[in-house]
Amino acid sequence: MTASTATASRPPSPSRSQHTSASPVPDVVGRLLVRCPDGPGIVSAVSGLLAEFGANIISLDQYSSGPQGGELYQRTEFQLADLPAVRERLEAEIQSRIGRVYGAEWSLSGEAQRKRVAIMVSKTDHCLLDLLWRHRRGELPADVAMVISNHPDLAEEVRQFGVPYFHVPVRNGDKQSTEREHLRLLTGNVDFVVLARYMQIISGEFLHDVGVPVINIHHSFLPAFIGAGPYQKAKDRGVKLIGATAHYVTEDLDEGPIIEQDVVRVSHADSTRDLMRRGADVERQVLARAVTWHAEDRVIRSGNSTIVFT
Amino acid sequence: MTASTATASRPPSPSRSQHTSASPVPDVVGRLLVRCPDGPGIVSAVSGLLAEFGANIISLDQYSSGPQGGELYQRTEFQLADLPAVRERLEAEIQSRIGRVYGAEWSLSGEAQRKRVAIMVSKTDHCLLDLLWRHRRGELPADVAMVISNHPDLAEEVRQFGVPYFHVPVRNGDKQSTEREHLRLLTGNVDFVVLARYMQIISGEFLHDVGVPVINIHHSFLPAFIGAGPYQKAKDRGVKLIGATAHYVTEDLDEGPIIEQDVVRVSHADSTRDLMRRGADVERQVLARAVTWHAEDRVIRSGNSTIVFT
Amino acid sequence: MTASTATASRPPSPSRSQHTSASPVPDVVGRLLVRCPDGPGIVSAVSGLLAEFGANIISLDQYSSGPQGGELYQRTEFQLADLPAVRERLEAEIQSRIGRVYGAEWSLSGEAQRKRVAIMVSKTDHCLLDLLWRHRRGELPADVAMVISNHPDLAEEVRQFGVPYFHVPVRNGDKQSTEREHLRLLTGNVDFVVLARYMQIISGEFLHDVGVPVINIHHSFLPAFIGAGPYQKAKDRGVKLIGATAHYVTEDLDEGPIIEQDVVRVSHADSTRDLMRRGADVERQVLARAVTWHAEDRVIRSGNSTIVFT
Amino acid sequence: MTASTATASRPPSPSRSQHTSASPVPDVVGRLLVRCPDGPGIVSAVSGLLAEFGANIISLDQYSSGPQGGELYQRTEFQLADLPAVRERLEAEIQSRIGRVYGAEWSLSGEAQRKRVAIMVSKTDHCLLDLLWRHRRGELPADVAMVISNHPDLAEEVRQFGVPYFHVPVRNGDKQSTEREHLRLLTGNVDFVVLARYMQIISGEFLHDVGVPVINIHHSFLPAFIGAGPYQKAKDRGVKLIGATAHYVTEDLDEGPIIEQDVVRVSHADSTRDLMRRGADVERQVLARAVTWHAEDRVIRSGNSTIVFT
Repeated sequence: MTASTATASRPPSPSRSQHTSASPVPDVVGRLLVRCPDGPGIVSAVSGLLAEFGANIISLDQYSSGPQGGELYQRTEFQLADLPAVRERLEAEIQSRIGRVYGAEWSLSGEAQRKRVAIMVSKTDHCLLDLLWRHRRGELPADVAMVISNHPDLAEEVRQFGVPYFHVPVRNGDKQSTEREHLRLLTGNVDFVVLARYMQIISGEFLHDVGVPVINIHHSFLPAFIGAGPYQKAKDRGVKLIGATAHYVTEDLDEGPIIEQDVVRVSHADSTRDLMRRGADVERQVLARAVTWHAEDRVIRSGNSTIVFT
Repeated sequence: MTASTATASRPPSPSRSQHTSASPVPDVVGRLLVRCPDGPGIVSAVSGLLAEFGANIISLDQYSSGPQGGELYQRTEFQLADLPAVRERLEAEIQSRIGRVYGAEWSLSGEAQRKRVAIMVSKTDHCLLDLLWRHRRGELPADVAMVISNHPDLAEEVRQFGVPYFHVPVRNGDKQSTEREHLRLLTGNVDFVVLARYMQIISGEFLHDVGVPVINIHHSFLPAFIGAGPYQKAKDRGVKLIGATAHYVTEDLDEGPIIEQDVVRVSHADSTRDLMRRGADVERQVLARAVTWHAEDRVIRSGNSTIVFT
Repeated sequence: MTASTATASRPPSPSRSQHTSASPVPDVVGRLLVRCPDGPGIVSAVSGLLAEFGANIISLDQYSSGPQGGELYQRTEFQLADLPAVRERLEAEIQSRIGRVYGAEWSLSGEAQRKRVAIMVSKTDHCLLDLLWRHRRGELPADVAMVISNHPDLAEEVRQFGVPYFHVPVRNGDKQSTEREHLRLLTGNVDFVVLARYMQIISGEFLHDVGVPVINIHHSFLPAFIGAGPYQKAKDRGVKLIGATAHYVTEDLDEGPIIEQDVVRVSHADSTRDLMRRGADVERQVLARAVTWHAEDRVIRSGNSTIVFT
Repeated sequence: MTASTATASRPPSPSRSQHTSASPVPDVVGRLLVRCPDGPGIVSAVSGLLAEFGANIISLDQYSSGPQGGELYQRTEFQLADLPAVRERLEAEIQSRIGRVYGAEWSLSGEAQRKRVAIMVSKTDHCLLDLLWRHRRGELPADVAMVISNHPDLAEEVRQFGVPYFHVPVRNGDKQSTEREHLRLLTGNVDFVVLARYMQIISGEFLHDVGVPVINIHHSFLPAFIGAGPYQKAKDRGVKLIGATAHYVTEDLDEGPIIEQDVVRVSHADSTRDLMRRGADVERQVLARAVTWHAEDRVIRSGNSTIVFT
């Protein structure tokens, strides 16, 4: 399940209403994600509990991997004017009546608490800039807390967006101390991390210690081309599609649960460099969608797969 | 709301399980569509009622057009082994506790009761054959009860699929008597009608009298080309995309609520005839999706729009 | 280079005009494919030679893999009323002034000589029927000479289209004698072979002996899933796209030069069976495009890649 | 035909090689566009002439609207090391042997002479920034000479890219004097103009006087929604696709020859504001492709249509 547990101490940013952009009273919207063994009564229990608190369910998505012995995944978005006041009590009830009774994992987050994201990048800017740009346009339902890079190249660019840029070089291949510095910067400050063409291997220890989801973007091909120079190999094979995959990072890099994928059409007339440009275009679109959906709690991990309620 | 009220007298066809293709005991799956003014408690009321009957909700989709003064649309798919036995009692409870209390329109259907469809066609066969073919492959979650045409051309083709073909010519422009014959064939026999390139105008009286939803497919262009010869006009304008739209038929032909749309890319090198072929390809795909979604009760009409839970 | 050398003894089928469907005089259209080391003068030499014969070039596509040391690929479609009469002389001139001078491989075919294709299939009918259907609709610029299957299941279906069906079982795993029978059926009778879900491995000997191009269709995934049950693996990984690839068959099955690819979007709500259906839909579209392009001499092989002039 | 006549006085920018990004000697690439009544011999004449000058044709695209009485469109890209030196002589030969003999319109441009573009914009930045960004990344085969706006809002943003920003307000609805100022800024300085969400009507006089092609981007819907608030109308109709169209501007605004189109999928769950965001995403992609193709002389106008050699 996505680590969307909110940190209570953070002051809420201005809420965004999905339905009325000029609402006089701020909507207070909560999102409850639930995952548990499938069985009768769970929808009724969740919705009944929310009804008791006076919440109005504005959207509910549910998926079951199979009625017998399957898992149930549920995303409920609700409006509850006094959510901040009653939150503690609501969470206690959820734990006792849903968590314990149905063996459910769950998380509650408020839309007003926008997730904070750190973007890690090396030298390639297309994914980074697309996210910063959408952020400035108000399209990204998350706050960009910082950008971390192993290169200084993009510092000025990033700071023009009002976002801090931390250059953390990898010195003499000492990845351990680099990752320690990453953890010092990230811990407590962000709710998820995005690798926007960060070209360093992430260690399993880092993934464990950072304690928040990490999203990566990489190119995809039909068929897959293993090893160095995948675009050249794709050119040599004459592929007609170039793709990109956004996924959660696990210890098996590039093998984690897929959040989103897309492709773009290419032809023999495209040079290897053209393929790379087309790939960059599809990468930034796919990553932007994945980050948005994660930030809106639309993605639930399930084994090495995901449930995406879009 | 889609007219999915089931006719109790029809013997159920073999049920299809979504999850296990070789289930020893047939799953009994019901679908409840609800539409009502949005407000707190409706999800809880529906799911609580289903839980009382021992139903297991396997999927629930909900959409609200806005929490204040909006409409709520809900599709609930549930498993209930003794649905046939308790159905009458369940419907009475739904009407009293959902219909009356929340001012809800609703309909209940069982997956075992496959919808029966009539396909109307003129001379062009691509949409018709695609539906018949999918039907034979077991891909279409509906039973094709008959094909009606104003031409005799496709009779042999259709009958090879084991489907009756009724040739109802339009004599001397006497559309009224033609439509009366259509009604005699259709009334009580089908749950919806598909116009698969049926090139006659349907009257408002027919739409009213037939009493079941009618789905149409037509080509779509960016921009729209009004009047005769749209493909030639599209060619003259040099459009780069050819599309198709499947929609419910209202008295404003081609202006009814859209169920599905798609496009295919074309170029200057495509002749007008090529554009028509590409258009035919996208038409049959779009119509097949629309028919499938309608047959699975995934489409709820809302004014001149639709909610499609896919 | 595609083996499009025409067999002079075959009577031409009625020609199809690209531009005027009701032309009183049949257009005589020829297609010249040329591949040679890139260098100055080749376009001029080809077009000059055709001009001498009074041919009118109606389309010319050319691609160079690089001006220094690259290969040049050229497809020229021209109109030449007395092509049948002057063909022998034209071919001699091409060989002496293009073939010898520029070290070019080339092939000349007439549009009136539609390519003859054999379709090989096992039990799955979606690709086969799509091709037969398009053939009957006049959409396929090739003649379906026969269908060969290792199973009897689809015989009646195929024969309804007026196409002979040969059941050649694989007895006791004796693939050699099966392939000998294939060769007896195919040799001299077809210009290319399409594996439309033919689930037997083709031997290198067969590929060599059959002497005509063989096109295959298979599903594609991002990433690739090796081994048995790829759809289940794709489901487990939660892929968001299902694809298909049509390619020329080489001894490395599924690794030959790609002709066409496409994908369709799927979601977590699609069961493994749904993925297979979606895959079937995209397979038949991709194969139909690949077969059409091959039949129109639009595909030139280049190493393990292809140049596709669409 | 696109107004791609090069201005000889402008110093060439560094050439870009399509094939080798680190070529020691700059490739000198020329592009010849030809449009004339179709007839035998034209390809031979063009390629023969280029061969005489020692040019190596690296790509040649040709399209004929029909062999009898049709128009022929041809784009030839060639390498000619001493193009700058022989250009005048080459042009004279083209005019005498192609222009006069075949009644051809033609234009010759050198890849080294990148086209200069002015971008006009109001307040909406997504198309503008996408072009500036691609320009900085070296993806745009054109030089952005200036940005002109009727609002001051985007000045700082644009100047950070090193591009001049001219604020030309429309005072008291005096469009004439505004357009005169536009002409003073543009005349002689740019090879084409891009309206990147410039929300003012362009007069026919301006189009005539500016003397260079003007490209516009606008949203597209299936079906079209006329008048104000098209996104709200699209929402009300429940469209499933949102599109964008890039086209040359003619006096009939939004009715000029289409260069490129694309769509993005939307659903009932997308608010009107979401539709606008999705529309913005597809607009910037479509405009970037149209600008790139125009800058590379890949687009030939033909009546109210275009031939696009991609």
